[in-house]
Amino acid sequence: MLHIILFLTLSLLFSPPAKATVQDFCVADLTAPETPSGYHCKDPKKVTANDFAYSGLGVAGNTSNIISASVSPAFVSQFPALNGLGLSGLRLDLAPGGVIPLHTHPGANEMLVVLHGKLTVGFISSASNVPYVKSIKKGDTFVFPQGLLHFQLNDHKTHALALAFFNSPFPGLQILDFALFANNLASALVEKTTFLDDAQVKKLKAALGGTN
Amino acid sequence: MLHIILFLTLSLLFSPPAKATVQDFCVADLTAPETPSGYHCKDPKKVTANDFAYSGLGVAGNTSNIISASVSPAFVSQFPALNGLGLSGLRLDLAPGGVIPLHTHPGANEMLVVLHGKLTVGFISSASNVPYVKSIKKGDTFVFPQGLLHFQLNDHKTHALALAFFNSPFPGLQILDFALFANNLASALVEKTTFLDDAQVKKLKAALGGTN
Amino acid sequence: MLHIILFLTLSLLFSPPAKATVQDFCVADLTAPETPSGYHCKDPKKVTANDFAYSGLGVAGNTSNIISASVSPAFVSQFPALNGLGLSGLRLDLAPGGVIPLHTHPGANEMLVVLHGKLTVGFISSASNVPYVKSIKKGDTFVFPQGLLHFQLNDHKTHALALAFFNSPFPGLQILDFALFANNLASALVEKTTFLDDAQVKKLKAALGGTN
Amino acid sequence: MLHIILFLTLSLLFSPPAKATVQDFCVADLTAPETPSGYHCKDPKKVTANDFAYSGLGVAGNTSNIISASVSPAFVSQFPALNGLGLSGLRLDLAPGGVIPLHTHPGANEMLVVLHGKLTVGFISSASNVPYVKSIKKGDTFVFPQGLLHFQLNDHKTHALALAFFNSPFPGLQILDFALFANNLASALVEKTTFLDDAQVKKLKAALGGTN
Amino acid sequence: MLHIILFLTLSLLFSPPAKATVQDFCVADLTAPETPSGYHCKDPKKVTANDFAYSGLGVAGNTSNIISASVSPAFVSQFPALNGLGLSGLRLDLAPGGVIPLHTHPGANEMLVVLHGKLTVGFISSASNVPYVKSIKKGDTFVFPQGLLHFQLNDHKTHALALAFFNSPFPGLQILDFALFANNLASALVEKTTFLDDAQVKKLKAALGGTN
Amino acid sequence: MLHIILFLTLSLLFSPPAKATVQDFCVADLTAPETPSGYHCKDPKKVTANDFAYSGLGVAGNTSNIISASVSPAFVSQFPALNGLGLSGLRLDLAPGGVIPLHTHPGANEMLVVLHGKLTVGFISSASNVPYVKSIKKGDTFVFPQGLLHFQLNDHKTHALALAFFNSPFPGLQILDFALFANNLASALVEKTTFLDDAQVKKLKAALGGTN
Repeated sequence: MLHIILFLTLSLLFSPPAKATVQDFCVADLTAPETPSGYHCKDPKKVTANDFAYSGLGVAGNTSNIISASVSPAFVSQFPALNGLGLSGLRLDLAPGGVIPLHTHPGANEMLVVLHGKLTVGFISSASNVPYVKSIKKGDTFVFPQGLLHFQLNDHKTHALALAFFNSPFPGLQILDFALFANNLASALVEKTTFLDDAQVKKLKAALGGTN
Repeated sequence: MLHIILFLTLSLLFSPPAKATVQDFCVADLTAPETPSGYHCKDPKKVTANDFAYSGLGVAGNTSNIISASVSPAFVSQFPALNGLGLSGLRLDLAPGGVIPLHTHPGANEMLVVLHGKLTVGFISSASNVPYVKSIKKGDTFVFPQGLLHFQLNDHKTHALALAFFNSPFPGLQILDFALFANNLASALVEKTTFLDDAQVKKLKAALGGTN
Repeated sequence: MLHIILFLTLSLLFSPPAKATVQDFCVADLTAPETPSGYHCKDPKKVTANDFAYSGLGVAGNTSNIISASVSPAFVSQFPALNGLGLSGLRLDLAPGGVIPLHTHPGANEMLVVLHGKLTVGFISSASNVPYVKSIKKGDTFVFPQGLLHFQLNDHKTHALALAFFNSPFPGLQILDFALFANNLASALVEKTTFLDDAQVKKLKAALGGTN
Repeated sequence: MLHIILFLTLSLLFSPPAKATVQDFCVADLTAPETPSGYHCKDPKKVTANDFAYSGLGVAGNTSNIISASVSPAFVSQFPALNGLGLSGLRLDLAPGGVIPLHTHPGANEMLVVLHGKLTVGFISSASNVPYVKSIKKGDTFVFPQGLLHFQLNDHKTHALALAFFNSPFPGLQILDFALFANNLASALVEKTTFLDDAQVKKLKAALGGTN
Repeated sequence: MLHIILFLTLSLLFSPPAKATVQDFCVADLTAPETPSGYHCKDPKKVTANDFAYSGLGVAGNTSNIISASVSPAFVSQFPALNGLGLSGLRLDLAPGGVIPLHTHPGANEMLVVLHGKLTVGFISSASNVPYVKSIKKGDTFVFPQGLLHFQLNDHKTHALALAFFNSPFPGLQILDFALFANNLASALVEKTTFLDDAQVKKLKAALGGTN
Repeated sequence: MLHIILFLTLSLLFSPPAKATVQDFCVADLTAPETPSGYHCKDPKKVTANDFAYSGLGVAGNTSNIISASVSPAFVSQFPALNGLGLSGLRLDLAPGGVIPLHTHPGANEMLVVLHGKLTVGFISSASNVPYVKSIKKGDTFVFPQGLLHFQLNDHKTHALALAFFNSPFPGLQILDFALFANNLASALVEKTTFLDDAQVKKLKAALGGTN
């Protein structure tokens, strides 16, 4: 008899009878416009367990390039379930000698975990210009505060693999060399605002596909 | 003469002449998609004083059910003016012996005020597993920190009435028994992840309408 | 046998053995300095269930004054458990004819619930200068957006009682007449910045104890 | 040879090849509905450098009015690039004797810089009713905390110019006299909630275009 | 000659000459009292690169216990560099058959990555009681929204290893069985607020070391 | 008679009699330790109007250096009233040909206003590497989103003066050349993580006082 009466609870507990009253999650509808807080939510009735899973961090990136490294992001663009959750990640593959060149994440702090191999990592503080550099290995975690220039370098003879996590679904990634040399920002402006020599700027612009 | 000149101020103060430049409020348009920060705003020109008023917390819930209690939410779904304001509430009616079973609010802290009768209330800390339990009466306030398991029990002979307020327009409400026993989550999974006996799980699944 | 083995779990689950790793709450130590996020936390080991309870909202305020009303706050200063929780409340008692004069809460939105009697309440938008005014009664809720001038008036023949809740532990309360007339702000400055007549300012300064 | 290989980096660094993965900015689409976090973002591909520039703060306002002053906002409504950035500004022009009457910004703190002339400025605390008043001159900065009544008065013989900045793209601006006297809020309500005399209210209502 | 002149820049660029003007990071001083925003910052001059590194996630937990699993947190208590950064993590080791029983993180969303083996994971929504359950394997990521009951189960024959990341330095961890059965919360209260049978409660209290 | 009765209001309005119940402001005590939310608050009773005023933005910086420019910050370190207010500013003086070299503000968005002269300004997006560059003049405002590389260049024949405002009391300032060349970060690391030539790195290290 208990179950008959208890069963009524489900429909009677709420007054008026319950409809969904909360936003447990907000899986991104990437086809709708963005807002400052992120994308519109996909209709919750169409969300399944598959929406909360992503396999991209399990796939090794192609390191057959000049930096001998690759970046595989799991940002909200790749993994819509992260919308509104204040989290994202990425995978770094670095062949021996590989490097993730100096870069910043304009919108997030970073927590990096080494899964294979060894890395030399570091960031430079803005308050004091002090570089914080350390060699870390499999199992080690390192933290890079928001917006500061930092790098990861595999100066060892084995492949390295690391995962990085961020406190934002869109942390951003600004790689210094691409920002300076891989676009049409005038060489004269680059030189005046960096004090780099013209020959150096022209050489790297050529190498990275920049113009002007 | 003063009023003639001053009157000009209204149109001349702003340069260029003022249009609405602020978002004083953002009454929810419940028919539009949600975003991580809440619903779209209803056109402010169509908003009236009535949008800011809600009468649902004044209506006693039906406690003729097995828990002898009811929950009447004033979340953004019921009261669209709360959209974006970081606030919501609900009304608890508890007949003698009534109980709001162990539950959490995943997205908000709670401040409960007893309006009639007496309640035994409590929450369990996650840091130390310590239960914080207390009998409170009409006029008393009790605070439940975000996301922690808590309950309200009317172990007295008179009807009890309480209001609860939250620092979110969608605080959520996850009732432990409903989460475990009132859906199609496989009994085997419930048992492995709670250590409850199969007979116990089956009994409560039957009572609460769960399957599997 | 089960319980013997399971019992080991408690100490072995965590590696290394668990210490408290979370901040479930941060009951204010009102004797320590404040920070922008609130007060220092009281030592959690000294916190008991009594810290989470407050009885002040259950005590009627004294309305034997010229406004025939009183305000009884449950802000973090009165109720230290609210520290860091983004919530607070207050109780309004209004005798017949009583009024909470025009005021703002600089740091919070407000959700007001009438427990007894009737009130005329209202706020004025800043975007459009539109007043939103409504008569509400026992059981009704009304919302006042952050920082906007608003009032509560008991223009009925019975005592009124209301509770208000805020999405901040320190919402602030700036009563217009006190800000203008109950301090030593020079009358000339009040007049130049409000266009009130000198006689009016002097009269209210005298009434409210202001000088200058 | 270097540049040939390096050039490949651009397309190969990311796995899978990069698409835009971050929200660097969210220039407002003012034609779309608002959300609690602001406006929808304009399509980033249509955004140009011109979107990030605004010339309105460089244009003197018309001070030929009774307050001998004007306010020229650069809020998100005027400058859509501010959407989601937590910043906005405005320009104050004050002829000799000009005044920005007592007002609040319900949603933001303010940092004011005097560019020309001298001003007497002040705000009134809510905690203690203490007025904080000071004469400041060209080059000086003054801070007004969120939601508190404050004013700027040019009690000197030269034109004054100041810029103010806010930590919100929609800080709001509620001018006390407009809120009280420039709308249809009933005189009786104004009087009961401010203790101002009927003649005073009627006089200012007439001057500012209010009714009722 | 260039370098001589440029070198002066360092001391002359700032007016007045620069002192540290920013908070790049706030490594926790765990010996000082907490605030709602976290711990006091360690003196930046005493911070070295070692402060930003942590090796605990690289050490396998001991799974020789009844749940055949262990949890190794990297919260701010273990890794003080996380203070104020909105990030933390933990390592899960699960032997075959191991389980992290139903639990919540009251203060954070979670992003889990499987490094070895396979897991069945799931959470239960509060809005609809729908369970979202999925089998995931090495390389897969799964997201658990804040405050919702969820679990990780190794129902395979090989050891499993996973890392979880949170958008808070103190996400909290409330394990359902410990909250219900591993403290001195009265059995009668547990039963009334969960509908579990007395025998079931007593059995698990005995197993988990609970009293009352 | 009115004033006698009204005067009582001040002490009787609050039940119990009022003490300061809000945090209107939190002027920094720079001698106490920091927290993630900022500095401890100075005792409000010792705060005067002078605490809210700062004159540093009115003082021209010394541009007799190789960049022909100077930066005068009004961050919380210089102007303690900004503590907790989410705002700060700085003054830029640029002689003809002067430049603020490429830099980022790791923790804030920026709104720049030109007060004298003309500037060429620009930032580089991280999502697309697109440079957004524009010539602006007296009266113009330009916005730089958080964390992105940007610059200000006076490529005109007159002195330029600009003010910048930020949505944080500690926005940070990381100047690329100082981060790369003005510390002891090993040249080999700089070269591997930037692809700059050794001669270029050595030349700028020498010029900027860097070692290694």
